Amino acid sequence: MTYPTHLKKLVYNLRKLPGVGTKSAERFAFEILNWTPSQQKEMAYTLETLQKEIRFCPDCGAISDLDSCLYCTETRKANHMICLVAYARDIFSIDETGEFRGLYHVLNGLLSPIEGIGPEQLSAKKLIERIEQNQIKEVVIALDSTLEGDTTALYIKDLLSNTSVVTSRLAFGIPMGSSLDYVDQGTLARAFCARSPF
Amino acid sequence: MTYPTHLKKLVYNLRKLPGVGTKSAERFAFEILNWTPSQQKEMAYTLETLQKEIRFCPDCGAISDLDSCLYCTETRKANHMICLVAYARDIFSIDETGEFRGLYHVLNGLLSPIEGIGPEQLSAKKLIERIEQNQIKEVVIALDSTLEGDTTALYIKDLLSNTSVVTSRLAFGIPMGSSLDYVDQGTLARAFCARSPF
Repeated sequence: MTYPTHLKKLVYNLRKLPGVGTKSAERFAFEILNWTPSQQKEMAYTLETLQKEIRFCPDCGAISDLDSCLYCTETRKANHMICLVAYARDIFSIDETGEFRGLYHVLNGLLSPIEGIGPEQLSAKKLIERIEQNQIKEVVIALDSTLEGDTTALYIKDLLSNTSVVTSRLAFGIPMGSSLDYVDQGTLARAFCARSPF
Repeated sequence: MTYPTHLKKLVYNLRKLPGVGTKSAERFAFEILNWTPSQQKEMAYTLETLQKEIRFCPDCGAISDLDSCLYCTETRKANHMICLVAYARDIFSIDETGEFRGLYHVLNGLLSPIEGIGPEQLSAKKLIERIEQNQIKEVVIALDSTLEGDTTALYIKDLLSNTSVVTSRLAFGIPMGSSLDYVDQGTLARAFCARSPF
């Protein structure tokens, strides 16, 4: 398509978003062109100031717009537990459940030979340090139930096998509110094995 | 979700994109957080300079980043034809086909009582003016095949019935390369009625 150069640039930038192809990026671009100048400026300003406003905690890797990390508090340290997540975004949904009040640790990815992510790209070394520093007793592995998630979980389990820390992993089973019809065989098998007295 | 304020702002801005709900906006926002600072700045700059770089032609409504409109040339005027489109983006795909070398006219929307778009919101008056100015002989109505598109096409046809201009509309039929299995009844019926010698 022979778009004007600046429009091409906008489409090019929007294509970097996850799951957005050329067609969607074009739809987004034309919508943005219809925004009021102040809406466009607001979006530009939000992006411009992102680096200044958003911080990643140097210890746990959580996202915050405050100077201190919301999740590295003394109260949380006192629980001597670490919940291990792949990405900073996972912390929000886990914390929202209210089931966990310990520390978090962001691995910054999952092992994936295809994408070239090996153990050295993950913050596993830092995890060991933090386990010692905070006398952690349990590491809850809250990683995806995918090939990469499973591989990474096994790697972490192996890594911590020499320490005195207990490892656990999120339970697998039928999602709440779902019908058995829509649950795949693998999940059903796991749910069967892990059935609990009722 | 208790996101940091600035992250909430980013999600709020991204939600304005068409078809993007909270979940997608969150995915986009977290992806943007992973971009390099220079990528974020580039996107911010593109949005910031949008108003300065992109122009809508005051005559036809086409988008351009040049001072003069690419589609309002003397050569195109000499064809004495206008292709009527609903949105400026439609011009790019029509022009790409190479089937049309006349002038364009952007209506800036389609009649839609639900969305509160009446005849006065459309640039129909301007169309009449341009038809007279350029001694237009044919207006090709290239509007969507939807309820709104059909209504608007009928409205334009009616509006131009007093003038000497000929109106035509894009052909309906089976999309190229598609299997009959996937073509709906309405399209099939139209394709049947408009069958051509082969």
